Amino acid sequence: MRIRKKQQKREQYQQLLDEFVQNPDRNKGNWAQFFGRNVPLHVELGTGRGQFIATLALLHPDVNYIGIEKFQEVIVKALQKKQARLVDNLALICMDVTDILEIFAEQEVKRIYLNFIDPWPRKKHADKRLTARPFLDKYRQILKPDGEIHFKTDNRSLFEFSLNSLSDAGWRLRNITFDLHDSPFQEGNVMTEYEEKYVKQGLPIYRLEAFYPSGD
Amino acid sequence: MRIRKKQQKREQYQQLLDEFVQNPDRNKGNWAQFFGRNVPLHVELGTGRGQFIATLALLHPDVNYIGIEKFQEVIVKALQKKQARLVDNLALICMDVTDILEIFAEQEVKRIYLNFIDPWPRKKHADKRLTARPFLDKYRQILKPDGEIHFKTDNRSLFEFSLNSLSDAGWRLRNITFDLHDSPFQEGNVMTEYEEKYVKQGLPIYRLEAFYPSGD
Repeated sequence: MRIRKKQQKREQYQQLLDEFVQNPDRNKGNWAQFFGRNVPLHVELGTGRGQFIATLALLHPDVNYIGIEKFQEVIVKALQKKQARLVDNLALICMDVTDILEIFAEQEVKRIYLNFIDPWPRKKHADKRLTARPFLDKYRQILKPDGEIHFKTDNRSLFEFSLNSLSDAGWRLRNITFDLHDSPFQEGNVMTEYEEKYVKQGLPIYRLEAFYPSGD
Repeated sequence: MRIRKKQQKREQYQQLLDEFVQNPDRNKGNWAQFFGRNVPLHVELGTGRGQFIATLALLHPDVNYIGIEKFQEVIVKALQKKQARLVDNLALICMDVTDILEIFAEQEVKRIYLNFIDPWPRKKHADKRLTARPFLDKYRQILKPDGEIHFKTDNRSLFEFSLNSLSDAGWRLRNITFDLHDSPFQEGNVMTEYEEKYVKQGLPIYRLEAFYPSGD
């Protein structure tokens, strides 16, 4: 009996995994077709357990959402949320963010969300931070001319690093706040699992938006 | 006897006041001539008691410095420091920063320092902050194409406000730090009187540089 239950669970898990987008690179440049409609595409990098993106998908049926997360055992939770909320405007991809140029064409994305990404605190790992220059250059390629990055974090050092990294790479910043939940920008804010815990402790969330200025 | 001493003091004070640049608007566009040499001009807005600018003048004889301060009873201290240090590359002006376009020509200034300026914490006074848009537009006029603003403050809200104000006005930011004295940018940093007290308490200093990008 116990063995059968275990096997059932394994099968359910396998079925869940099948729900991830397989071979996402085949949809490069064709995500509108994949979703069956040509509306703005918003992507969360480092989706984690998916509360943020699954909630957004429910709130904004007029947007196509993609959540990308490296760790299968984490993103499975996001998939469960997607199923529970019956949202068909959300796709989940299990892959490394480093490879995004393989799955998005130039100017295919309207908005990129970076929420509580790994701060990689050691200096020698700075290039792994998702706001490091090599990543920013990739984001610039896949974003539309009026595209934007929405970034929030509880990590002061990562925020400081990101302000510099974005500025140095020529991005313009806006709506910068050192305390999201005591700012005008909290309207419409959807909290991640991590954010909820953090805010309960009364700790501040840093947030900014960035866009790459057109030549005009 | 006491009366004579008082009178002496009054006379000394009057002599000090004569040392301020009189009718600074007459030197508009001609500060190089005023100093007798054509070297970069650095200006501190809100010079206060002058430790910062008088020290810089001593350290960098190859730069012309101007300190501007609204309050006579404060800037008198700066004048005393100038005299004590025997620096002839420093001019002090007692006036309101609002009027800087009357004393500097377009592209006459290489660098503007804003150190621990009044945070004007009430929202209705936001326009009085020296990093508010109307001031930034004036700075842009008087700064050279490769000119820059160096800004430091202990005030977190003012720093947040200034990041947004500068970004929204199209300035590019660099060398942003949330803790100057624990950053690579402290090299060459000269402390103001206020900063010394603050740092002794172990509190962080925020700092940034800003420049207006040329059209290229």
